[in-house]
Amino acid sequence: MGKGDDTRTAILDRGVRLATRVGLEGLTIGRLATELKLSKSGLFGHFRSKEALQIQVLDAAAERFVDEVVKPAVREPRGEPRVAALFDRWLAWTKSNSGPGGCLFVASAAELDDRPGPVRDRLVALQKGWLEMIAIIFRTGVTDGAFRPDLDPEDFAHDLYSVMLGFHHAARLLRDPRAEDRAHAAFGRLLSTARRPR
Amino acid sequence: MGKGDDTRTAILDRGVRLATRVGLEGLTIGRLATELKLSKSGLFGHFRSKEALQIQVLDAAAERFVDEVVKPAVREPRGEPRVAALFDRWLAWTKSNSGPGGCLFVASAAELDDRPGPVRDRLVALQKGWLEMIAIIFRTGVTDGAFRPDLDPEDFAHDLYSVMLGFHHAARLLRDPRAEDRAHAAFGRLLSTARRPR
Repeated sequence: MGKGDDTRTAILDRGVRLATRVGLEGLTIGRLATELKLSKSGLFGHFRSKEALQIQVLDAAAERFVDEVVKPAVREPRGEPRVAALFDRWLAWTKSNSGPGGCLFVASAAELDDRPGPVRDRLVALQKGWLEMIAIIFRTGVTDGAFRPDLDPEDFAHDLYSVMLGFHHAARLLRDPRAEDRAHAAFGRLLSTARRPR
Repeated sequence: MGKGDDTRTAILDRGVRLATRVGLEGLTIGRLATELKLSKSGLFGHFRSKEALQIQVLDAAAERFVDEVVKPAVREPRGEPRVAALFDRWLAWTKSNSGPGGCLFVASAAELDDRPGPVRDRLVALQKGWLEMIAIIFRTGVTDGAFRPDLDPEDFAHDLYSVMLGFHHAARLLRDPRAEDRAHAAFGRLLSTARRPR
């Protein structure tokens, strides 16, 4: 990676953190320039438009998510170990992003759901890609005989996502000290429903 | 109800709709005055501060929620019929609020979770009150022998909330045509886990 790439990565990293704090709509080239103590025109040269910046920030967050959650999980054996690793890593991601602002994807979902345009489109594409990835991981577990073949892998992905949204809400808004226990219990029930009877 | 009350109700109703569209943080006295074609100073006389307006708008939405969801549900017999009515009404609420902006509570949760202050405090109090109400309704079903006494009613409330957050996300952001089916299926599984074996 050259110096230009390093700079770009550093800028986008700061962009992700700013967006989780002020919302994706609050992320402007001017505001990010102030944050980075760079000139607005220089930063404009990098990104050209607010929307392009927002989209690249979403992509940067997704890339980090793949590195921190997906890649380590798919190194685990198929079936339950892989799904459990996915859940644990995802929970850790949601927690570590629980500093200021929370998970950028959850925050952006509520913010953008009624704002049509390319930024919303990218968020939807990333979220659908993530749900598909969960479904694929579930499906490999079906093939290996770990999970019931009569379940819809997309239903499983949807239900796992619901568990994580419930955790995010309980932990971040309500500061429920039992949020994590509850998420683990809900995940356990989801797994036991999915398990193939022997 | 006097004329003053009617006016206040109409103002708050518009406030709820504006807040679901622009976010609770975007709801200012000035913006609401423009929306209502009223003078800003007149509206300021009603609410005194942006925060007071935001809190009253949250309260107004909660009152509507009680009227549309809670009251009709508690008219149903205890146990499964009451919990099922709660779920159906809540789903209908989430859908009908899915026009522009979505459910104010879900949108505000992501917006306010990292913004300490009286508005966040009120949102948390309302959400906790709602979770408690679900737990109470579950508990009456335990007393009547419909639900398992070894389950934590607060866990049930948390899990039901997760199902609804998953529905909101799938229906509003992803526009998943199967969102409602998936919510019903998840609720069915939750109920079947909670049912007392006979």
